[in-house]
Amino acid sequence: MKKILNDPVHFVDEMLDGLYRAHPDQLAYAGDDPHCLVRADAPVEGKVALATGGGSGHLPVFLGYVGPGMLSGCAIGDVFQSPSADQMLEVTRRIHGGRGVLYIYGNYGGDVMNFDMATEMAEMEDIEVRTVLVRDDVASAVTERSDTRRGVAGMIFAFKVAGARADQGGSLDDVEAAALKALARTRTMGVALSSCTLPAAGTPTFEIGDGEMEIGMGIHGEKGVRRGPLESADQIAVELLDAVLAELDVTSGDRLAVMVNGLGATPPEELYILYRRVHRTLEDRGVAVHQAFVGEYATSLEMAGASLTVMKLDDELTGMLDHPARTPFFVQVGR
Amino acid sequence: MKKILNDPVHFVDEMLDGLYRAHPDQLAYAGDDPHCLVRADAPVEGKVALATGGGSGHLPVFLGYVGPGMLSGCAIGDVFQSPSADQMLEVTRRIHGGRGVLYIYGNYGGDVMNFDMATEMAEMEDIEVRTVLVRDDVASAVTERSDTRRGVAGMIFAFKVAGARADQGGSLDDVEAAALKALARTRTMGVALSSCTLPAAGTPTFEIGDGEMEIGMGIHGEKGVRRGPLESADQIAVELLDAVLAELDVTSGDRLAVMVNGLGATPPEELYILYRRVHRTLEDRGVAVHQAFVGEYATSLEMAGASLTVMKLDDELTGMLDHPARTPFFVQVGR
Repeated sequence: MKKILNDPVHFVDEMLDGLYRAHPDQLAYAGDDPHCLVRADAPVEGKVALATGGGSGHLPVFLGYVGPGMLSGCAIGDVFQSPSADQMLEVTRRIHGGRGVLYIYGNYGGDVMNFDMATEMAEMEDIEVRTVLVRDDVASAVTERSDTRRGVAGMIFAFKVAGARADQGGSLDDVEAAALKALARTRTMGVALSSCTLPAAGTPTFEIGDGEMEIGMGIHGEKGVRRGPLESADQIAVELLDAVLAELDVTSGDRLAVMVNGLGATPPEELYILYRRVHRTLEDRGVAVHQAFVGEYATSLEMAGASLTVMKLDDELTGMLDHPARTPFFVQVGR
Repeated sequence: MKKILNDPVHFVDEMLDGLYRAHPDQLAYAGDDPHCLVRADAPVEGKVALATGGGSGHLPVFLGYVGPGMLSGCAIGDVFQSPSADQMLEVTRRIHGGRGVLYIYGNYGGDVMNFDMATEMAEMEDIEVRTVLVRDDVASAVTERSDTRRGVAGMIFAFKVAGARADQGGSLDDVEAAALKALARTRTMGVALSSCTLPAAGTPTFEIGDGEMEIGMGIHGEKGVRRGPLESADQIAVELLDAVLAELDVTSGDRLAVMVNGLGATPPEELYILYRRVHRTLEDRGVAVHQAFVGEYATSLEMAGASLTVMKLDDELTGMLDHPARTPFFVQVGR
């Protein structure tokens, strides 16, 4: 895969420079470090602040969701690498509006270690911090070991729901509870058709045959649940849907938010072909889709493939999903 | 390139089915033909209506821009194929709100022939129709033959500006003039790093070497102005910027809208690296960016590459650009 780059060493710094230049009214950074990204109007006094963080290479995850109604800030690492605890602390200081900070991020070792360290340091500065880990990827561990699962596109629903609760004036308890509730009812599974290539490596992260796909592959190329011949869009849609619904007790009359997310190189047309089968299957089962999100929400550089995320709604979650939000990559018009 | 497909013969029909299912509150179709896409609330009485059309494979172009503040409707053809005159007429009938219809579309032979035929048929039904052709791709012909140029991503600025003028209650003359003014001040040039693959063909449309790029290639793989070794992001940015500014008389103190558009497989991170160099170069020349659009706005299936579009603003165009719009793929929050 060919890339539009300068020196790969400066990939993240140049990307961030471009991002601040493109969105000067929406984004700023803390502590003289562009890796410490915050809302331009941070801190918002009197409201709970939300932070996330993780490696680069997943746009719009993570920093694309910073803005009113969603996240307050985000610490950015190098490609697929955790940011440092100091960077997380810098973000935390800058976004804290006096009512505490909630960390919501994917369950990856480096991120967990650094966020835990940042939490300790923040608490020494009398900033109350809570953590909600995102572990929505059903392919990354069996149900009995779901606490070890990785976090993928489902985190966007958690950002949206918790961000709404914070924007509505909820306490740290309320916002944490909202994130936990959203995630308890959210599951994701993906399929990869091609590898991504780290800019500094220059060669594909893994090999996959011309006629092959890998179901359940992670967004850094982590091993999936099975590799096999590339199937039809309808077969893939049904396999992913069955897997994400298996733990959610979805029955006739239920209402869902559904995300069909492109991993990078897969055109929107193909995502809509996948969505079609998902929607038809749900319709056949008497299940309604409250809102569909079809597009690139959490990518893995130029990987071809897609993931399906489902959140089972109730009235409370629906209200928080519908709450307006405005970030560089995600706008929810109030409904 | 591998695809998530069922039978390629049904690629467009299934994509459209998915699209209507994902956006039921925003989109509908006319004449029992899903290829005749219109705003869900069409016709809007008392306002000028805007239509476009063209082949599939370019999402969000064309149909992604149908909605309040932008287009009223869009006729969709097969992949890279023009829709029929009858389909354009069907859209025209359904969107006409009593004050005429403006067609804005890219300058491609099949589309021109069919839209001209649709115009004649509409006028026999007493619907007044005007046409504005988009010819923003500077690479597709020299300045002296600019009337033969192809239309590419610059059409989105024309949709936005003319759509605002229509939404503000402008007459057909006003809306046509707004589109013409926007396009007179808009230029685009692109670079391709890899080919796209038509679903029905299954093999790449053209060959390009591992270390090569083609400057000025069209969004269907039309020949560009030169092929050469893949250059750095900064070199590409400056070459594209110089080419689009050459005909726009941009000087210190001017204000632009800038779009860095991904053609399909190129990750957003790389688009921001390109944008960075564009913005820095403009800044050095004393030129301001009023709003930056960085992302996938007009694609060519899974082609890797990008295009740069610049629109030179004045107060009137700025006001129309800032006017709110809401479509499935494009939301402008009022500024």
